[in-house]
Amino acid sequence: MAIKVHGIALSTCTARVLLCLHEKGLDYELLPVDLASGAHKQHPYLSLNPFGQVPALQDGEVSLFESRAINRYLARKHKDIGTDLLRSSSLSESALVDTWMEVEAQRFYCPIGTVIHQIFVNPLRGIAPDEQVIEAEMNKLGKVLDVYEERLSKSKYLAGESYSLADLHHIPILVYFMRTAKADAITSRPHVSAWWDDISSRPTTVEVTANMML
Amino acid sequence: MAIKVHGIALSTCTARVLLCLHEKGLDYELLPVDLASGAHKQHPYLSLNPFGQVPALQDGEVSLFESRAINRYLARKHKDIGTDLLRSSSLSESALVDTWMEVEAQRFYCPIGTVIHQIFVNPLRGIAPDEQVIEAEMNKLGKVLDVYEERLSKSKYLAGESYSLADLHHIPILVYFMRTAKADAITSRPHVSAWWDDISSRPTTVEVTANMML
Repeated sequence: MAIKVHGIALSTCTARVLLCLHEKGLDYELLPVDLASGAHKQHPYLSLNPFGQVPALQDGEVSLFESRAINRYLARKHKDIGTDLLRSSSLSESALVDTWMEVEAQRFYCPIGTVIHQIFVNPLRGIAPDEQVIEAEMNKLGKVLDVYEERLSKSKYLAGESYSLADLHHIPILVYFMRTAKADAITSRPHVSAWWDDISSRPTTVEVTANMML
Repeated sequence: MAIKVHGIALSTCTARVLLCLHEKGLDYELLPVDLASGAHKQHPYLSLNPFGQVPALQDGEVSLFESRAINRYLARKHKDIGTDLLRSSSLSESALVDTWMEVEAQRFYCPIGTVIHQIFVNPLRGIAPDEQVIEAEMNKLGKVLDVYEERLSKSKYLAGESYSLADLHHIPILVYFMRTAKADAITSRPHVSAWWDDISSRPTTVEVTANMML
């Protein structure tokens, strides 16, 4: 029975899970959730994710939500297919993956997510982007990316010399960010830029992000 | 050689790591970081945590930052001591731990952290707490705690029938929150309240939180 993903291809959190499924070459079925009618805030969807957000995953008897946790599950279950995305065979290497996964979730996602919300979501709701908010969040993001630049001058990927969930988790929101006039925050930092060129050109990334056209 | 924790006992992120160390009965040395003089924003501390925040951990050759990632490392390395805080022997159970760890980090910590900042940190800086901000964040927190109430009506702990990192990670900020007039957000929800009574009265919690008096 194929894995079921409840979500939409345009959602960065759904795309995060799809990237992991493609990386592992797993069959899945994407079951659209009608966000426009608020289906995600009602039963039966709330039984899949009580917080009413996409995605949710069903793999046989296992039912999960929270995209980053779903990817840990998929990477652990299928660690022998392709790259071990959690580097689970080494205590110190898996700790590095965990660390940079936390950095993505705690430090990177909030400012870049706010910028994307201002630029793409506000206009859909008839609200002008707030340039002061964008500037403040770009300032925070710049400081985070300065640390990334230093880090990526020492290793090819965030958690070392091989691709991991720590890198993968950055991709969906960066796909949208790179279509904005703010993309030079990435391209002006040589090591961050080379890292983005690498992870965004992976065949699995190209497959998934082709469906992220707004 | 004892594990070194660079941080301060009053910091919720430092306390999160200390709780895990006590839970595993590990020897450690708490090396204070002089936040008042900005030592965490300067070298040599930045070589331990490039984002300039406490805590950082050194365990022999392994040097880590991000409290939640540090705890994953400690729980994985010492999984056979006491409770297996990640339930790593079961794929589905470890996925539940991961899910509720994500919920803590992504949904719970931000609103409660903002409330604590307004109530405790603002006055230290001569700024009055902003009641509108507190109300908005309490509203968000209430919705999260409604999901917790439902969840904890079905299992003793967030990720099932045994204590895990998913529970532990909530403790430090709740210690401060329970000293505010907003504590009824916890005590008014019977299952959340019973869960808090349980996890806050663990001997390891009592040991660590005794040092969190402001």
